[in-house]
Amino acid sequence: MSINYTGPYKKGEIKKVVLAYSGGLDTSVILKWLQTAYGCEVITFTADLGQGEELSPARKKAEMLGIKPENIYMDDVREEFVRDFVFPMFRANALYEGQYLLGTSIARPLIAKRQIEIARATGADAVAHGATGKGNDQVRFELSYYALKPDIKVIAPWREWDLSSRTKLLEFAEKHQIPIAKDKRGEAPFSVDANLLHSSSEGKILEDPWQEADEMVYQRTISPEAAPDKATYITIDFEKGDAVAIDGVAMSPATLLTKLNELGKANGIGRLDLVENRFVGMKSRGIYETPGGTILYAAHRGIESITLDRGAGHLKDELMPKYAELVYYGFWFSPEREMLQALIDKSQENVTGTVRLKLYKGNTTVVGRKSPKSLYSMQHVTFEEDQGAYNQRDAEGFIKLNALRLRLRALGQGGPKS
Amino acid sequence: MSINYTGPYKKGEIKKVVLAYSGGLDTSVILKWLQTAYGCEVITFTADLGQGEELSPARKKAEMLGIKPENIYMDDVREEFVRDFVFPMFRANALYEGQYLLGTSIARPLIAKRQIEIARATGADAVAHGATGKGNDQVRFELSYYALKPDIKVIAPWREWDLSSRTKLLEFAEKHQIPIAKDKRGEAPFSVDANLLHSSSEGKILEDPWQEADEMVYQRTISPEAAPDKATYITIDFEKGDAVAIDGVAMSPATLLTKLNELGKANGIGRLDLVENRFVGMKSRGIYETPGGTILYAAHRGIESITLDRGAGHLKDELMPKYAELVYYGFWFSPEREMLQALIDKSQENVTGTVRLKLYKGNTTVVGRKSPKSLYSMQHVTFEEDQGAYNQRDAEGFIKLNALRLRLRALGQGGPKS
Amino acid sequence: MSINYTGPYKKGEIKKVVLAYSGGLDTSVILKWLQTAYGCEVITFTADLGQGEELSPARKKAEMLGIKPENIYMDDVREEFVRDFVFPMFRANALYEGQYLLGTSIARPLIAKRQIEIARATGADAVAHGATGKGNDQVRFELSYYALKPDIKVIAPWREWDLSSRTKLLEFAEKHQIPIAKDKRGEAPFSVDANLLHSSSEGKILEDPWQEADEMVYQRTISPEAAPDKATYITIDFEKGDAVAIDGVAMSPATLLTKLNELGKANGIGRLDLVENRFVGMKSRGIYETPGGTILYAAHRGIESITLDRGAGHLKDELMPKYAELVYYGFWFSPEREMLQALIDKSQENVTGTVRLKLYKGNTTVVGRKSPKSLYSMQHVTFEEDQGAYNQRDAEGFIKLNALRLRLRALGQGGPKS
Amino acid sequence: MSINYTGPYKKGEIKKVVLAYSGGLDTSVILKWLQTAYGCEVITFTADLGQGEELSPARKKAEMLGIKPENIYMDDVREEFVRDFVFPMFRANALYEGQYLLGTSIARPLIAKRQIEIARATGADAVAHGATGKGNDQVRFELSYYALKPDIKVIAPWREWDLSSRTKLLEFAEKHQIPIAKDKRGEAPFSVDANLLHSSSEGKILEDPWQEADEMVYQRTISPEAAPDKATYITIDFEKGDAVAIDGVAMSPATLLTKLNELGKANGIGRLDLVENRFVGMKSRGIYETPGGTILYAAHRGIESITLDRGAGHLKDELMPKYAELVYYGFWFSPEREMLQALIDKSQENVTGTVRLKLYKGNTTVVGRKSPKSLYSMQHVTFEEDQGAYNQRDAEGFIKLNALRLRLRALGQGGPKS
Repeated sequence: MSINYTGPYKKGEIKKVVLAYSGGLDTSVILKWLQTAYGCEVITFTADLGQGEELSPARKKAEMLGIKPENIYMDDVREEFVRDFVFPMFRANALYEGQYLLGTSIARPLIAKRQIEIARATGADAVAHGATGKGNDQVRFELSYYALKPDIKVIAPWREWDLSSRTKLLEFAEKHQIPIAKDKRGEAPFSVDANLLHSSSEGKILEDPWQEADEMVYQRTISPEAAPDKATYITIDFEKGDAVAIDGVAMSPATLLTKLNELGKANGIGRLDLVENRFVGMKSRGIYETPGGTILYAAHRGIESITLDRGAGHLKDELMPKYAELVYYGFWFSPEREMLQALIDKSQENVTGTVRLKLYKGNTTVVGRKSPKSLYSMQHVTFEEDQGAYNQRDAEGFIKLNALRLRLRALGQGGPKS
Repeated sequence: MSINYTGPYKKGEIKKVVLAYSGGLDTSVILKWLQTAYGCEVITFTADLGQGEELSPARKKAEMLGIKPENIYMDDVREEFVRDFVFPMFRANALYEGQYLLGTSIARPLIAKRQIEIARATGADAVAHGATGKGNDQVRFELSYYALKPDIKVIAPWREWDLSSRTKLLEFAEKHQIPIAKDKRGEAPFSVDANLLHSSSEGKILEDPWQEADEMVYQRTISPEAAPDKATYITIDFEKGDAVAIDGVAMSPATLLTKLNELGKANGIGRLDLVENRFVGMKSRGIYETPGGTILYAAHRGIESITLDRGAGHLKDELMPKYAELVYYGFWFSPEREMLQALIDKSQENVTGTVRLKLYKGNTTVVGRKSPKSLYSMQHVTFEEDQGAYNQRDAEGFIKLNALRLRLRALGQGGPKS
Repeated sequence: MSINYTGPYKKGEIKKVVLAYSGGLDTSVILKWLQTAYGCEVITFTADLGQGEELSPARKKAEMLGIKPENIYMDDVREEFVRDFVFPMFRANALYEGQYLLGTSIARPLIAKRQIEIARATGADAVAHGATGKGNDQVRFELSYYALKPDIKVIAPWREWDLSSRTKLLEFAEKHQIPIAKDKRGEAPFSVDANLLHSSSEGKILEDPWQEADEMVYQRTISPEAAPDKATYITIDFEKGDAVAIDGVAMSPATLLTKLNELGKANGIGRLDLVENRFVGMKSRGIYETPGGTILYAAHRGIESITLDRGAGHLKDELMPKYAELVYYGFWFSPEREMLQALIDKSQENVTGTVRLKLYKGNTTVVGRKSPKSLYSMQHVTFEEDQGAYNQRDAEGFIKLNALRLRLRALGQGGPKS
Repeated sequence: MSINYTGPYKKGEIKKVVLAYSGGLDTSVILKWLQTAYGCEVITFTADLGQGEELSPARKKAEMLGIKPENIYMDDVREEFVRDFVFPMFRANALYEGQYLLGTSIARPLIAKRQIEIARATGADAVAHGATGKGNDQVRFELSYYALKPDIKVIAPWREWDLSSRTKLLEFAEKHQIPIAKDKRGEAPFSVDANLLHSSSEGKILEDPWQEADEMVYQRTISPEAAPDKATYITIDFEKGDAVAIDGVAMSPATLLTKLNELGKANGIGRLDLVENRFVGMKSRGIYETPGGTILYAAHRGIESITLDRGAGHLKDELMPKYAELVYYGFWFSPEREMLQALIDKSQENVTGTVRLKLYKGNTTVVGRKSPKSLYSMQHVTFEEDQGAYNQRDAEGFIKLNALRLRLRALGQGGPKS
């Protein structure tokens, strides 16, 4: 079998490449293909992002495929992932297209960043990833690469090679002695991505958006039906917009999200069946499971509800869709995302306090919130005597001046008709 | 007891006033107070907005309080309410502060509009409402009044009179032979507003945002716990953004929303415990129940997900918070709301098709969507061979040019650091 | 010389192509190259957009290059251009990056639309344009083609051929008997685009953004220095947002813009030296001359200032940058541009009246505005006695309630420090 | 003459008040009225904001009116004004309603802040200002007061007293031995506000928006007609978004703005005749002169044009109207303004370099820009051979994927019609 290379770089132009390597069949084929097609040295980078798989098999496989030990990089980046990517995004209450918590999108910039760091450390001139040419991930990886190191060479094998069918891929694997797990012989019924924040499933049996997703698609949550008949109550403490404790127990970011994932999973929380718009221009359907993230989102909105000023909150809400779009499209390392982050972080200075939540069969309900920084004034809002805190007569002037332009409009030209 | 009148108009300045009259104790006191304080003729307007109460007792009570039959106006405005107010708002996916479906806000402009129509028809020079001086409703009523009839005189008794305590109010009622229902003798433990879209409860026992709301607060939904253990599946058909049928059965707007309310109620759907920011500047806590609206919101997002272009959808999402704010603040009859509506309605021309939903113990899940206008292209998105519909190599150019400015930035000055 | 064709289509795949043809050297070379490289029938389309050149030479040249008379299309689209493209855009007060009146951008969708119409009429399967691979125009043409006819084949010779140097281009022209005007032998010192709205100049001697543009670059305006020492005063009448008369004389859209161009030119108005951001990711420097458009922009803002409600105007202002970006990027025929247009057009219903302007040596100053729909209320604004139109005491309540959230913030946590 | 006091506070409720005192007739009357109506101790605060008047006469007058020397505060706040208020605002390119450089608006928060500081230092429980009940300034002062010290008492004499006619005011002055300058006997033909950034004139003879403003209205600029026939060229250096030098000479913020004012004045630059929308709901007409600010605005846009990334710039442009609205309305000390400022300041980190400008008879033209941080890449943009910096073939994929959703739309349902 010959490699019909039609990519942007020629054999010999690449010396050393840092590959985002999972240890699975696909990236193992890519590893071998990079060696063959480009004749270059391959460095593998495998990250523990909380996807729930051991890293050691990936090391073994890389070694078996001829990667030198010093060229095998493995990192547990879970704390960095949650602290520097997930939490800043949750400060924004980011939802793509009103619903998606961006679990896949937010992991890509971190992987790309580590690849570039390794490229700098090892003098590699190229990076490669295993994302296809139809999806968003290629964009997220590559925009991050280019933003961090503008002269980096990027190899996207799925856009270049001719191993587009399963049969060809397996043929290539066999020819190059890449071990194929028994359950990988057949085609997977759908494709999965996972990290500490979420799992996503898409493709194949999920492609018809009219067909309900089968229960077997769900990886990480039990169904609301299977969840306990009794609600679980928890509290989450926040400091400056970030969750810091569950039920009063302080935890590191990744530990906390792991704990929320357990709570969410056990209560059937965080499933989403969505048709969304990809950056590359087509619509796709995905099944997302974000158990801990769904709880965190609700809790963050809850603590903001008593600690964030109205003007601050409304501005955040107006900018959120833009922020979420940037993350989804892959513009994490862009000046506009950084600018929005500066704005958002500024707003979180007093987002500190405690939220109480009820978790029950798929439902996450904020049932209480309190804060030393609370802006909620019982004295002002009360139906009871307020000791002069609020003068109801002020409302008349407030309304009159808010109405003035509407009245002038109606006088001048009619305005709305009654 | 003397009326210590300190309002903006003097006795004698008002000839005829159209009062938004519910038939309850408070608006009956207002009715009498208007006659006493201003010496003016009172016209009552009572609307059936689907609040779930008979109108006939209100008529009887008005007559008993001396209102002439020709001065008693009662209208069933449920279809107008859903068709001209609720549906246009749901086309926008409006959520105030990310969560509230605006059930109270959207009813006020309609009531105000009818009051103004009646004022025009009867030659009344004033209108009055029963909203307090601390809330949003006074603003919503009055901005609508002024926008529709800029020279109208507005009376807001709660901001003017000295009947601010329950005792004084009951004293006044007794003195003027206003019947007091036994259960109104004591103070209600919280205050309720209801219409076909929702019920809201607030005040008194709900004022502490750390205290979970008692089950007895909920008026219109059973709890998720009490809902059936088996899911209910339904389909909703949409035409140009509006729901037109449930399970294939065509229904008028109000009939459809009524049916969705039943489905929502039965499945424990649509409860919300929220601290929100009022337009008058304070935070307040409300318990909202929007059973049908919650289903409708999810279904509308679902049908848009396959029929709305990405550019259209993202623009809508960015403008939604502004739209929701306008509705919440009371600017329904403002040019900017009308402009946004024109934009939104333009986007809905092809939002036609069918959504399938699963209702289960508080959860509303879109599980299928189909449309003759679908923009979802299985041919493009498929993991399988796509017959050349999509050229993966295009992605390279797409990414390269999207990255160009990020690369130039990194070259010029560093950009983000890795 | 061989044609080294590397384009997306193969020879024989194209049967008939509609070329946007100016009659100049470059598009004549393209014409011949299309015939040679693709072996296809060529239809030429030449539009009079007010660029200030006769169309008849283009016809002669097309004939000379072997185009059949029935395949030569020439249209005077000046009225359509101003009425359906320029005026709707000016209703939005569109300025790209705060300064550019979008003169080139707005002409492309019209040319593309006519090409597609001709393709439909003649059964052509392809269209072609003479824009390069570095600029915005290729994007504007092609997005318009695809939006109007998604199965159209698009040929962009400058991205495909190997005639990238001037020498090769002239060689090709000579070989194919394409006449070369004497002044086209040498390289032009910069590149020009023109239509009724503006002229743009860029490239070559203008590429260094630190160097002031030479006076000889300006095509369509005299310099402020050369303009008369005495101001010219004019009035412009508007109806529903569009200019309809100058000095009381009603004119068609194109006639009116032509007249404004004369007035602007004579007074040294409308020059702009700008570095802007292209959609393809790089910055470029252009010299723009928009004499009539500059006056029209000022006048439109002037008439809006007394006829547009504040809420309407501020919403327009917030959305303008997005609208301008869409036009600049080439998304004229996109749902989001159409949605914004619906919003904008809704706002213009009462933008009717008269503006008086002073034109003097590069300055355009609105010095008067009046309207039967005016929202300006002298009675309210006056420093004199206002007969009770405005109650200054209302301002107290207005301020108090606007301040409430700021006070609660300061009480709760400090807020800004003094 | 009795003081018919109807204000929010009663005599005796105010102990000590800090008055924003100009030394003019109006604020002298206020000073005396405060003493009389409230029987309180008055502290005067007079600021040198660059309004072009000596402060010492204000001191003398205050003393003469019985203010103890230790209660007279006078500050030269010009540097603080430009550094902490004007420059941050210019980083945003703020224009209210597309045109107004916010010269009055931006001065109010500083005065308010100093009043509150003095109140804290002296134990005063109240502040007072001389703004009327119809304008924006009352809002700007009072929102700032309340945001900085939520329990402060605010006195706005113009909304409270009965000295609403000129005659009554003069009577009061005479009765209390307040000296009246001869030229203040008659009514001024219009009202003026001035500081280092601008002068504004409004009211009286300017109230008819159809009447051109008389030349005598202009205070601070010569007319374009009177300006030199020869252009003046200058350079301005920027560092992180702020101007730091003119013609290579480093200057402090206030010195620099003063110098720009001279340059602007001499060249007839910075006049604006505007009808704008006040926050209190009415339209008003103002004549603004912002000579230095107009130059600064153009120069800042110029330096941004080569140093600011497109994504950053477009985000700034979209948010600018909101920022300008906040400043105009008086929300300088609000969380949302601070959040926007954080975003804007983040964008300015590399806005460093030099702009060359041509000043000529009212025109300010950027004719050159250069920067060590420039993002302008001559190599990429050139019409000449670019050494492979840019691959024109990338544009095809870029366009194809940008077009994909438009094509799917056209396929699915028609989209725009050609």
